[in-house]
Amino acid sequence: MTQSLINTKIQPFNATAYHNGDFVELSEKDVLGKWAVVMFYPADFTFVCPTELGDLADYYDRLKEMGVEVYSVSTDTHFTHKAWHDTSDTISKIKFPMIGDPTGRISRNFGVMIEEDGLALRGTFVINPEGEIKVAEIHDLGIGRSAAELFRKVQAAQYVASHDGEVCPAKWQPGEETLSPSLDLVGKI
Amino acid sequence: MTQSLINTKIQPFNATAYHNGDFVELSEKDVLGKWAVVMFYPADFTFVCPTELGDLADYYDRLKEMGVEVYSVSTDTHFTHKAWHDTSDTISKIKFPMIGDPTGRISRNFGVMIEEDGLALRGTFVINPEGEIKVAEIHDLGIGRSAAELFRKVQAAQYVASHDGEVCPAKWQPGEETLSPSLDLVGKI
Amino acid sequence: MTQSLINTKIQPFNATAYHNGDFVELSEKDVLGKWAVVMFYPADFTFVCPTELGDLADYYDRLKEMGVEVYSVSTDTHFTHKAWHDTSDTISKIKFPMIGDPTGRISRNFGVMIEEDGLALRGTFVINPEGEIKVAEIHDLGIGRSAAELFRKVQAAQYVASHDGEVCPAKWQPGEETLSPSLDLVGKI
Amino acid sequence: MTQSLINTKIQPFNATAYHNGDFVELSEKDVLGKWAVVMFYPADFTFVCPTELGDLADYYDRLKEMGVEVYSVSTDTHFTHKAWHDTSDTISKIKFPMIGDPTGRISRNFGVMIEEDGLALRGTFVINPEGEIKVAEIHDLGIGRSAAELFRKVQAAQYVASHDGEVCPAKWQPGEETLSPSLDLVGKI
Amino acid sequence: MTQSLINTKIQPFNATAYHNGDFVELSEKDVLGKWAVVMFYPADFTFVCPTELGDLADYYDRLKEMGVEVYSVSTDTHFTHKAWHDTSDTISKIKFPMIGDPTGRISRNFGVMIEEDGLALRGTFVINPEGEIKVAEIHDLGIGRSAAELFRKVQAAQYVASHDGEVCPAKWQPGEETLSPSLDLVGKI
Amino acid sequence: MTQSLINTKIQPFNATAYHNGDFVELSEKDVLGKWAVVMFYPADFTFVCPTELGDLADYYDRLKEMGVEVYSVSTDTHFTHKAWHDTSDTISKIKFPMIGDPTGRISRNFGVMIEEDGLALRGTFVINPEGEIKVAEIHDLGIGRSAAELFRKVQAAQYVASHDGEVCPAKWQPGEETLSPSLDLVGKI
Amino acid sequence: MTQSLINTKIQPFNATAYHNGDFVELSEKDVLGKWAVVMFYPADFTFVCPTELGDLADYYDRLKEMGVEVYSVSTDTHFTHKAWHDTSDTISKIKFPMIGDPTGRISRNFGVMIEEDGLALRGTFVINPEGEIKVAEIHDLGIGRSAAELFRKVQAAQYVASHDGEVCPAKWQPGEETLSPSLDLVGKI
Amino acid sequence: MTQSLINTKIQPFNATAYHNGDFVELSEKDVLGKWAVVMFYPADFTFVCPTELGDLADYYDRLKEMGVEVYSVSTDTHFTHKAWHDTSDTISKIKFPMIGDPTGRISRNFGVMIEEDGLALRGTFVINPEGEIKVAEIHDLGIGRSAAELFRKVQAAQYVASHDGEVCPAKWQPGEETLSPSLDLVGKI
Amino acid sequence: MTQSLINTKIQPFNATAYHNGDFVELSEKDVLGKWAVVMFYPADFTFVCPTELGDLADYYDRLKEMGVEVYSVSTDTHFTHKAWHDTSDTISKIKFPMIGDPTGRISRNFGVMIEEDGLALRGTFVINPEGEIKVAEIHDLGIGRSAAELFRKVQAAQYVASHDGEVCPAKWQPGEETLSPSLDLVGKI
Amino acid sequence: MTQSLINTKIQPFNATAYHNGDFVELSEKDVLGKWAVVMFYPADFTFVCPTELGDLADYYDRLKEMGVEVYSVSTDTHFTHKAWHDTSDTISKIKFPMIGDPTGRISRNFGVMIEEDGLALRGTFVINPEGEIKVAEIHDLGIGRSAAELFRKVQAAQYVASHDGEVCPAKWQPGEETLSPSLDLVGKI
Repeated sequence: MTQSLINTKIQPFNATAYHNGDFVELSEKDVLGKWAVVMFYPADFTFVCPTELGDLADYYDRLKEMGVEVYSVSTDTHFTHKAWHDTSDTISKIKFPMIGDPTGRISRNFGVMIEEDGLALRGTFVINPEGEIKVAEIHDLGIGRSAAELFRKVQAAQYVASHDGEVCPAKWQPGEETLSPSLDLVGKI
Repeated sequence: MTQSLINTKIQPFNATAYHNGDFVELSEKDVLGKWAVVMFYPADFTFVCPTELGDLADYYDRLKEMGVEVYSVSTDTHFTHKAWHDTSDTISKIKFPMIGDPTGRISRNFGVMIEEDGLALRGTFVINPEGEIKVAEIHDLGIGRSAAELFRKVQAAQYVASHDGEVCPAKWQPGEETLSPSLDLVGKI
Repeated sequence: MTQSLINTKIQPFNATAYHNGDFVELSEKDVLGKWAVVMFYPADFTFVCPTELGDLADYYDRLKEMGVEVYSVSTDTHFTHKAWHDTSDTISKIKFPMIGDPTGRISRNFGVMIEEDGLALRGTFVINPEGEIKVAEIHDLGIGRSAAELFRKVQAAQYVASHDGEVCPAKWQPGEETLSPSLDLVGKI
Repeated sequence: MTQSLINTKIQPFNATAYHNGDFVELSEKDVLGKWAVVMFYPADFTFVCPTELGDLADYYDRLKEMGVEVYSVSTDTHFTHKAWHDTSDTISKIKFPMIGDPTGRISRNFGVMIEEDGLALRGTFVINPEGEIKVAEIHDLGIGRSAAELFRKVQAAQYVASHDGEVCPAKWQPGEETLSPSLDLVGKI
Repeated sequence: MTQSLINTKIQPFNATAYHNGDFVELSEKDVLGKWAVVMFYPADFTFVCPTELGDLADYYDRLKEMGVEVYSVSTDTHFTHKAWHDTSDTISKIKFPMIGDPTGRISRNFGVMIEEDGLALRGTFVINPEGEIKVAEIHDLGIGRSAAELFRKVQAAQYVASHDGEVCPAKWQPGEETLSPSLDLVGKI
Repeated sequence: MTQSLINTKIQPFNATAYHNGDFVELSEKDVLGKWAVVMFYPADFTFVCPTELGDLADYYDRLKEMGVEVYSVSTDTHFTHKAWHDTSDTISKIKFPMIGDPTGRISRNFGVMIEEDGLALRGTFVINPEGEIKVAEIHDLGIGRSAAELFRKVQAAQYVASHDGEVCPAKWQPGEETLSPSLDLVGKI
Repeated sequence: MTQSLINTKIQPFNATAYHNGDFVELSEKDVLGKWAVVMFYPADFTFVCPTELGDLADYYDRLKEMGVEVYSVSTDTHFTHKAWHDTSDTISKIKFPMIGDPTGRISRNFGVMIEEDGLALRGTFVINPEGEIKVAEIHDLGIGRSAAELFRKVQAAQYVASHDGEVCPAKWQPGEETLSPSLDLVGKI
Repeated sequence: MTQSLINTKIQPFNATAYHNGDFVELSEKDVLGKWAVVMFYPADFTFVCPTELGDLADYYDRLKEMGVEVYSVSTDTHFTHKAWHDTSDTISKIKFPMIGDPTGRISRNFGVMIEEDGLALRGTFVINPEGEIKVAEIHDLGIGRSAAELFRKVQAAQYVASHDGEVCPAKWQPGEETLSPSLDLVGKI
Repeated sequence: MTQSLINTKIQPFNATAYHNGDFVELSEKDVLGKWAVVMFYPADFTFVCPTELGDLADYYDRLKEMGVEVYSVSTDTHFTHKAWHDTSDTISKIKFPMIGDPTGRISRNFGVMIEEDGLALRGTFVINPEGEIKVAEIHDLGIGRSAAELFRKVQAAQYVASHDGEVCPAKWQPGEETLSPSLDLVGKI
Repeated sequence: MTQSLINTKIQPFNATAYHNGDFVELSEKDVLGKWAVVMFYPADFTFVCPTELGDLADYYDRLKEMGVEVYSVSTDTHFTHKAWHDTSDTISKIKFPMIGDPTGRISRNFGVMIEEDGLALRGTFVINPEGEIKVAEIHDLGIGRSAAELFRKVQAAQYVASHDGEVCPAKWQPGEETLSPSLDLVGKI
């Protein structure tokens, strides 16, 4: 039986990332203590991936302001990430860490490894400061994600986490009303 | 290790649903042969759930036109589904089958059962006519989903499935350009 | 081999019940220390169940006077119990806790879970203050129970527990003679 | 986990019974094909047992008319059953087979063996012609059963079995109304 | 491989016996500290058994004088033993404890349980004050034992135990010569 | 648990015996087809053994007339049996086969091997023509057996085997009355 | 125990390689039937690797003339191989297939996977047309290999394979004498 | 899966070697603390082996100057090593220890034992002072090794070990340039 | 795999022996502290055995002078040993302990038990004062041993044990030259 | 438990031997069909071994006349055997096959391998034409064997094998009397 990862804690890892012209060491400890988005994609130098990474890069400043770090992950090495960043216009916009996962450990931790290919599915995860996964979204290879919807989900997750006893209804946007569950509401919505 | 369900086939099940004033028997065989959306929620007579179900109900006619059936699932019985449909304005709009899953078998098949509560997480799955899961999205309990984004994903999944050799880039909408992967594009996007 | 539960102790559980307009948390600790009747039924919003629950509700005051608490249990949630209590005349009479058992743990503890349906059989159990089951009665789904006979059994069980060395003969009612087993009676009844 | 025996089939057995002045061989095959009541008690030449057996003996003719056979069972031998029948006024009324179960096999089949005593609990089972147990009732040693209530249960079980789609509400007696479950009744009782 | 019980210690047991108009509790501790004869038979109210028990009853006073206690055992209850003692002329002569073994534990301890019948074989055991079995004799059901020969064996066992270095030859009777094994006797008898 | 050998079939064996001046090969096949007495003793050239063997030798002609063969067995070799027969007056009387059991296989088959000594206990077994053990008698080393009582048991075993429906009461001797069990005798002896 | 791979057959694999401007599918079947050199290195876009690959590229024409195919392998994807070939002067010289091994299967088949890094050691293997490994050479990461010495080993392996009964002494070069083992040479070299 | 020995530590062993006219005891402790070459060959008194041993003997003085000890190993005894040294001109040049490995333990430690022959493959290993294997080279039996290339590898291994942050490119010789990996070099070689 | 006993220590045992007109208890502790010969043979009162025992008896005084004890062992009892000693001229010469091994424990300790016969092979063992077996010799049943050759072996074993660094060549007799192994002798004998 | 090899069949093996100037392949099949002596020794080029081999070589012609083949075995290779034969005067006398056992398989088959040394003990085995071991003799390393005594044993083994019903007494030599076991001889030798 395959149990979803929602509300489980992220597993330990060690990795090297390419980040702003440097090679940096990262572990699960770096992810804890703030909100985080982890975004997997199959491979450098391919096709849908750069459009998704570029889409996410455009939201990066706003996410940073909300206290959210972003990490992109593929099973390529950090050497290849640097080479791609050096040679692709879209990728060169990226300012968040690009993690190399050649052992596949992180991709397996999040259940997105395609074992027969050695590549990751298109999976995005929103993680709270305690390291618990609150939102998961996984697409088959050909179907691109939307950074705008991801942005909305992060906003909702943060709102719920900081407003005890309130929940966000469908398609909630910041500024809209939330719900406060109570016995009187049972059967009234 | 928890492996994602993307590209696995749906598991067998038997269930009774409340559908348009009747109790009907459903199995995995009814799901095969057309596109399907399966939408889990925690419990009848609660709070976020009716807003999500109502949001989805508003898209139902358009999804039907695209050949997509929708199924909502909770661990309540079909008796309770009927009672809720009879007494809630929002729920009374629903025209798709509301599946009762008191054994939790379907919720466990899709990995969304919260074992300590006996309730399902907010999980949505897009399934192709072969019964393969192409898109998965799971939220922790308090964070509502967006039917509009789900609608976009279904459109992209159908487009990719019917246009061999094309893939949908990030935030693709019908009418926009897709990509045709080729050796010449390597490193060019 | 299936061994009956008579004289075994009740197993631990945690549950939420609907009780007099509130949602309350209950565990096996709440059951200990007084006599208790635990009454399982298949599902809210069904047919035989409300007649049995109503029949039992009519005896509730007398049982309370005898120091006996009553708990009804189904695999529905406490939300559904409240909705049923709000909308059914018969059920609205109930003043004892209606336990929600969506995980089925309590139903399995008492051996009355129908695994293929996710529903409980019609089982009634009389439990002494030490938490030991003294009387068990289980019917297949269509056959209703009698609260009057249950009431007689509780009286007999209490009488035997408080009158050391006496036993209650067949169809005993309070006020009738009991038996004191002794060597002289061997072969004389 | 101890699963109740309701709706399971009776297990094979071989036994010798004292019946109307003869020793007769019985097996599970003799039980099949008609309704049956199997009534366990701890031991011959004791105290509550003869009152229960006498109580049941008084209903025997009516049960026979309804096509129901009765079997009493204890872990004594058939020799002892005969000796008790010869010497006790109450027991001499009995016209149904008194089964000797010195190996305890039948008592274990029905889950009523007290292993540390080698004696059976007070258990009564109503069995349909297919050999399926429809009603079970088990008391700790000191608490006598009621043959009248057993008679009512047998009547309800037979009624439900022969009237497809009807169920017997609480404390139902022959002649009273039954219920026919239907979608329209949901939430109306 | 079935190893004989000679020189093994008796196993623990707890039992209720009928003894001189009372029900008494016995355990292996009551057997230790004196010589004992344990005599198994199949069932009360049968045929060969009373002749053997009566035969042994006639030797009881002499055995008591020699410091030997006698215990008869069957898988009947102590209730049945009392009923038999009350109604049979032969059995009413018995003054030694008649142990009820409805669980069969003692019969199994001595290897004489016939599992398919739940009854004991005709086995007699002579036990020394240390609880060690010195003589065993087991007959199939139809073949009666001789209390006279048992009496001779008890005498020989006591003689050997109290006369260090002497052994009793074949068919020895008290007063006859015994043998003192020595190297000089090797090959001389 | 040590189960007695009564009513089990003798196990296969191969052995060499000293018999009337010859060494002869014997197996379990030689024992089948007639009544047999198998008599174990600890060792040649010892003390109690020759008295028991001599006692049995005196009954040999009468047993042969009744169709009973006798076999003595010890863990000595057949060479040693011959040497003992050549040099001892008592042993030279023996006309039945003296089996050598240096591997201890036969002694273990009958459960009389004392493993720490490599010697057999004093065990006697009466075997019917089907090879089933009907009577067993085992003494600790110092306590001699009685051939007269063995002779009585063989007579009783043969009588019961050839008179269907009759059983031999205690201390029965040929010519005395036997019992025919019947329902009318229950509780009358 | 770690047994060397010498004289074992290569294991099955499937892989995509970048070869002369195309992506091609390869398996172990493509390797069989001719001599082959398989050369592992840690990662594209690194440091020692391009010097080794360039060194080998210079020998490729001569090896092809000798009927030897060359395969380079790293755990990068074929997309990355193409990107490297497109952007590096040294690598652009390569005319042999560059296999992508992102699952690490081939690297594990040859025992050169560094599991904690997800990268391959510097291992070179000479394989005969039957698929048997005849020469193995593995260096820790910082120590470069010599294509000239590899070329000498391939020549020696081919010579020995085609000249039955001759062996190549130390530092043998084509044209030099070989040895023909014979009994007369024992102790003479 | 067969994992290469690179970067593992050598295993413990005890052996007797022939060394400069003496028999000496050696263990893995003697190997630690300096660089070492361990060179396996199949058998004394054979053909390729003496040419390889002679080739290596010619480099021995230079290796000693670089702080490298050499050990040759075969599964022959040290007695045979001495006899070969006494009678062969080539072997008599050897000044390094010739280890006897008749139990095959050392050959198995290094994975070069041919189990069906009881002989070692032609394996050479370069070991650093910490006992870690840095270079491994194994040939099938008929293909001789080159001491010159081994000498180059030892030089490269020592250079890399003593120059932190530098690596030796392909076919490096002392005096040639090495590489210092840095982020700026990525994609530039 | 059957490993020889040479250089293993003798196993613990307890036994009774016939020795100079007495029965004596012996254990492995009696064997330690001096040189010993243990000589097994199949059975008393047989054919080859007495010639071997007599042959050994003739060397007994000389062996005693050399500090060597002798033990003969068969699976017969000590009773039988005495009877044989009493009646056989050859055996009556024996002055060493004749051990009875009816359990076969000692024979199994030395690996000479023929399990299908319960008899020992003709095995002789020379044991040093530390209890280590230095010489073993085992014949099939029909082939007699030579006490003279055994005597020579004992002399050689004692000489080697007391002359450190010397070994006894083939067919060595006391007074003849021994060998002192040295490196110079390698290949010279 | 270590069971001796007497009367077991030799195990399969394959080996290369040096024999009369040639290398020959041998297996257990070559040993069958005639009498054989297999003689193990520790190592070539040592000390006691050549004296034993020379002693045996002197008996070789006589053994051949008796139809007996001789095989010497050590864990050295056949190459080393040849080198020893070429250089040692004593060994050059040998005309029987000298088997090389570098895997130790044959030495382990006969239980004479010293595992911690990789060398064989001094073991000699006489094998009949059916491949059954009839005589075994094993010495610790320093104690030489006697070819004369071996010759006597071979003669006795052959005599017994060809004269049915006769056995060879102690120290028998050809021409001396043998024994014919019979019942009359029991106790007479």
